Amino acid sequence: MAEDLFQITLEVRDYECDLQGIVNNSVYQNYLEHARHKFLKAKKLDFAKLTAEGIHLVVIKAELEYKKSLKPNETFTVSVEMEKVGRVRWAFVQEIRRQPDNELMLKGRISGVGLNQNGRPHVVPELEPLLKQA
Amino acid sequence: MAEDLFQITLEVRDYECDLQGIVNNSVYQNYLEHARHKFLKAKKLDFAKLTAEGIHLVVIKAELEYKKSLKPNETFTVSVEMEKVGRVRWAFVQEIRRQPDNELMLKGRISGVGLNQNGRPHVVPELEPLLKQA
Amino acid sequence: MAEDLFQITLEVRDYECDLQGIVNNSVYQNYLEHARHKFLKAKKLDFAKLTAEGIHLVVIKAELEYKKSLKPNETFTVSVEMEKVGRVRWAFVQEIRRQPDNELMLKGRISGVGLNQNGRPHVVPELEPLLKQA
Amino acid sequence: MAEDLFQITLEVRDYECDLQGIVNNSVYQNYLEHARHKFLKAKKLDFAKLTAEGIHLVVIKAELEYKKSLKPNETFTVSVEMEKVGRVRWAFVQEIRRQPDNELMLKGRISGVGLNQNGRPHVVPELEPLLKQA
Repeated sequence: MAEDLFQITLEVRDYECDLQGIVNNSVYQNYLEHARHKFLKAKKLDFAKLTAEGIHLVVIKAELEYKKSLKPNETFTVSVEMEKVGRVRWAFVQEIRRQPDNELMLKGRISGVGLNQNGRPHVVPELEPLLKQA
Repeated sequence: MAEDLFQITLEVRDYECDLQGIVNNSVYQNYLEHARHKFLKAKKLDFAKLTAEGIHLVVIKAELEYKKSLKPNETFTVSVEMEKVGRVRWAFVQEIRRQPDNELMLKGRISGVGLNQNGRPHVVPELEPLLKQA
Repeated sequence: MAEDLFQITLEVRDYECDLQGIVNNSVYQNYLEHARHKFLKAKKLDFAKLTAEGIHLVVIKAELEYKKSLKPNETFTVSVEMEKVGRVRWAFVQEIRRQPDNELMLKGRISGVGLNQNGRPHVVPELEPLLKQA
Repeated sequence: MAEDLFQITLEVRDYECDLQGIVNNSVYQNYLEHARHKFLKAKKLDFAKLTAEGIHLVVIKAELEYKKSLKPNETFTVSVEMEKVGRVRWAFVQEIRRQPDNELMLKGRISGVGLNQNGRPHVVPELEPLLKQA
């Protein structure tokens, strides 16, 4: 793991767990999204502000591999790396790892595109410095 | 579309929409899950009951292609088809289509496995009649 | 119950249930909100449109009495009545009843106020015809 | 504010905000619940474990006063105090305050009761040391 990998640490909240006693599948996307927005904000890209300006960073594909399930009271990290995929496309590569044992719970690849107010693909120059060449 | 395709009709609820004024990405997984559980129940497989019996139908992979965004007040269908992938594996192939124009909003492929109380892969014989050979 | 009571019929979704196997407490507020927005829309008041125009109908108090718990697969009605409380204040009186036995699950009283773009109380003339004198 | 007031610090997540650009009303109950469970756990009462043992701590009434709205990127504290109301009844008195200005966002009073597996009121002796005489 690179030393400078961006990650946040969160904790399972009981209301995020479902009948099965584990975190509901859809909630992992909440975790991933929150980590992405924190990542963008740490890079000085404020998601809510971009939205207010009419620039939408839109997810076009989400690939989620569920490895193990998070349970009540567990703590976990959510990492974020961003890869350039095309001129207006990028992908977030993310992992959720239970702590303190660092066990992999979920691998996610979230692909997106910038859209302007008219819903047309739109280069978001502010993203460029964040993108690794894949 | 096959005449006997299983689908449910739902309606966007305002609280499911986020800052961008559209349904939040994670909510589509809620829609897909609800449709799957209705499908299983229609086939006489009660998800909550299976869980109570210690059999967990666990999602191991979700691939979601976001085509367009649902907005407040829109109505949509969520379809469910189930494919056999291996001895203990299956996949749900699902589509979310806005109504009444039937425009495709999301394509999902949700792969899963049956697990018993010990977390070991487990054939769920009740599923077999539901599975199309892929 | 008045013949013309506004109500909608919904169904519990498994992801709305928590570790206790019942609908999570916070989810009832989702149900109530959805019913209020449908009520307003039925009365030709579009909540999302009002928001876009800078008029916010803001909840200032919620009083929720939890009588019984909804469980997976149950169907229920959510009713809405609106009372005038003051010049810029109103209250929604709501009930959630399990069907088909009509058993009372929750009684709610949601008090609100109209606010304009500057966050000041604001008469919403469109609401007046909807308000019963309490 | 008492020096020993129990409180946790959280941060608004963008997906918790709705069309109005503020935290959705129902989400505050999630915050309050999470703080209560953390409070109980800090006092060595594990909510998930109690549930597994068939003891349900059930909310019977929630009174929520919405003072101001939390917005994206804001940090806030959620406090918890517990009062004895009757033999099997108690109430959580809670406040949500934006930080760092400590502005009051929401006051909540959540009343509850212990129920056993048969749904009958049940003294939860483990709670007694936590209860202030109101």
